[in-house]
Amino acid sequence: MFEARLIQGSILKKILDAIKDLVTDASWDCSPNGMSLQAMDTSHVSLVSVSLNSDGFDKYRCDRNLTLGMNLISLSKIIKCAANDDTIIIKAGDGGDKITLLFEAQNESEVAEYEIKLMNLDSEYLGIPDTTYNVTIKMPSNKFQRICRDLSQIGDAVTISCAKDGVRFGAAGDLGSGSIRLAQTATSDKPEDSVTISMQEALCQSFALKYLNHFAKATPLSAQVTLSMSPDVPLGEPLLFNVCVVEYNISDNDDENPSTIGFIRYYLAPKIDDTDES
Amino acid sequence: MFEARLIQGSILKKILDAIKDLVTDASWDCSPNGMSLQAMDTSHVSLVSVSLNSDGFDKYRCDRNLTLGMNLISLSKIIKCAANDDTIIIKAGDGGDKITLLFEAQNESEVAEYEIKLMNLDSEYLGIPDTTYNVTIKMPSNKFQRICRDLSQIGDAVTISCAKDGVRFGAAGDLGSGSIRLAQTATSDKPEDSVTISMQEALCQSFALKYLNHFAKATPLSAQVTLSMSPDVPLGEPLLFNVCVVEYNISDNDDENPSTIGFIRYYLAPKIDDTDES
Amino acid sequence: MFEARLIQGSILKKILDAIKDLVTDASWDCSPNGMSLQAMDTSHVSLVSVSLNSDGFDKYRCDRNLTLGMNLISLSKIIKCAANDDTIIIKAGDGGDKITLLFEAQNESEVAEYEIKLMNLDSEYLGIPDTTYNVTIKMPSNKFQRICRDLSQIGDAVTISCAKDGVRFGAAGDLGSGSIRLAQTATSDKPEDSVTISMQEALCQSFALKYLNHFAKATPLSAQVTLSMSPDVPLGEPLLFNVCVVEYNISDNDDENPSTIGFIRYYLAPKIDDTDES
Repeated sequence: MFEARLIQGSILKKILDAIKDLVTDASWDCSPNGMSLQAMDTSHVSLVSVSLNSDGFDKYRCDRNLTLGMNLISLSKIIKCAANDDTIIIKAGDGGDKITLLFEAQNESEVAEYEIKLMNLDSEYLGIPDTTYNVTIKMPSNKFQRICRDLSQIGDAVTISCAKDGVRFGAAGDLGSGSIRLAQTATSDKPEDSVTISMQEALCQSFALKYLNHFAKATPLSAQVTLSMSPDVPLGEPLLFNVCVVEYNISDNDDENPSTIGFIRYYLAPKIDDTDES
Repeated sequence: MFEARLIQGSILKKILDAIKDLVTDASWDCSPNGMSLQAMDTSHVSLVSVSLNSDGFDKYRCDRNLTLGMNLISLSKIIKCAANDDTIIIKAGDGGDKITLLFEAQNESEVAEYEIKLMNLDSEYLGIPDTTYNVTIKMPSNKFQRICRDLSQIGDAVTISCAKDGVRFGAAGDLGSGSIRLAQTATSDKPEDSVTISMQEALCQSFALKYLNHFAKATPLSAQVTLSMSPDVPLGEPLLFNVCVVEYNISDNDDENPSTIGFIRYYLAPKIDDTDES
Repeated sequence: MFEARLIQGSILKKILDAIKDLVTDASWDCSPNGMSLQAMDTSHVSLVSVSLNSDGFDKYRCDRNLTLGMNLISLSKIIKCAANDDTIIIKAGDGGDKITLLFEAQNESEVAEYEIKLMNLDSEYLGIPDTTYNVTIKMPSNKFQRICRDLSQIGDAVTISCAKDGVRFGAAGDLGSGSIRLAQTATSDKPEDSVTISMQEALCQSFALKYLNHFAKATPLSAQVTLSMSPDVPLGEPLLFNVCVVEYNISDNDDENPSTIGFIRYYLAPKIDDTDES
């Protein structure tokens, strides 16, 4: 028996919007600690990892571990049927072949109930090493989204160059080139607008904008995004040691006392094609 | 000589939006009592009936009965050229081959005049029997629109099940199933949000969502929609005795004292395909 | 060395929106007096002329005349990367093969720098004669835009008929005909809503709506548009003597004291096809 109740059902809508264009089929792993999902994108270039803590739900019960494989497009279609202020309840029996989603309107005169068929998916749970990253950039998520979108007008890849005082995003292509420089901000009274850089050494890496634009669809979930990177490690090391991690916290929107209830992390290996700007 | 003047010209825009995707060519029947239109949709599955009372117009003159056949796409294109706060005047001579539409702006410094060519259409006026329906559901029109749109994500048909305490809209398809239950509301101070069920016996019928979605385009005309249905009558009876009627009142938007000036009614036979959910 | 700084960078966005669908490649001519651009549209039917005075910029330096040929689609893509409240700085070296665009955010923590490659374009600077026009119509630019769009529903060409008391825009086509009459307004306290007609003789000319709709994309630049026309001159005269000029002033948006900093003028020859409505 599994049951999870989230008063702010709109959080689930935003999570689905953030992953459904990247991953078609995926499994939610449900345990007493919470729900999580991990999947490679359909072209097997990037990895997305979603985690929701059990105590982030308004009610959470998971008697034994469950794996709920499903088509995320279908799930997204159904979640879109919930109104933004609906409470969403997810239910699954042990060993069943479907899950039930309940959407409760605030006035309680309307209840919607949807059932989605489950799928048996090949498990490909990847143990992501708990790497320490040399460079961490925290910045407004909408600024990251806009920079990726703007530079996509110029080229296919963005080169991220990081120094102590700021970070530079650059791209080049047929029509010319572009670069955007962000200075580290002073400690300000608006933490959601701040740019914070923590680094041990300078770094310059290139990434495919196509994927960063996909990741930026998580922008509505969090005012800030964190980019974590490390300089290239020697060849021969596993590729996953050498990635950019783009992380969005998932918070409830309690204005007075927001608390983190989970995260979305995207992992992307840098482009090492010599013909790119670097 | 025919002349009809409507200060709230936006009502005509909404009426055209509610029928132009369903019916391509149709005739307006003009009499001293008002204007009406009746037509099967292009696939001859549903029937739409529009009626505007003569006293709903700010000026109305109809010397003798006229039939004005026209292409509704063309009429809609031209009506869209009226600003929302324009007064619209419709004029036709006796036996002419065109009608004239005048759009008068509120500041009176601008007048637009359009002429549309008339068409000779085969008359197919269907005497709709004045049936008594066993089940009547009044509900917010935007809720009906959303339910039809949401369930279209799931399947092609909606099953409407009605009991004394509430109504259930259900659909099923490849990805799963969905159902939305509305409870009858208590007499409330917001009549436009109320759900009112009047019934003599329980009922369960299925309808093609494609047509209900078309009908729901009349939502801007009225805050409430009325669904009228009867349990299946014996085979051999005329099909039109056995339909769902989806009705929207057409009111002027006088906030203090709104009055009904006509209606749009859509008639749709239930799906009797055995393979549907029922 | 060329450098021009415009605090209201959004003006450049609006200018590009007003010409990029009409002209693909064009040269900006930069002189100590300002920047200007003149180009035929890609089908060589209409002519667009943009002029920005040097004193309309917040800083302007042009050591010697420069011709900056470029693809306007590329320029538009890059200008769109500027936020609406960014300051835009244009820089070019003497004899270089690129220009640099700098976008400075108001909070100064972010600077974007783009480079566009220049092109060698065949110069086709047309000396437009400083004709006196017999008929001048000043009207709200959004009304002109709406009229052109509405009449495009009816036909391909608009016939503009002008008399002392007002102007009539008419079109005809398969579905019928339409005409919009504007009366000259009294001197009013809202100059942006006024319709002002100055004429020496009555006039009736037809123009292709396709081009007028293109011109109307300059609407966000100015609350009023000026149409200047002359009756047909005898055959044998150069065609450019016999055009409609559609002119939009370019102003800074200083609410207290707006000042004109340039203009966009579009030139279009009338349709002389006998089969059109006239």
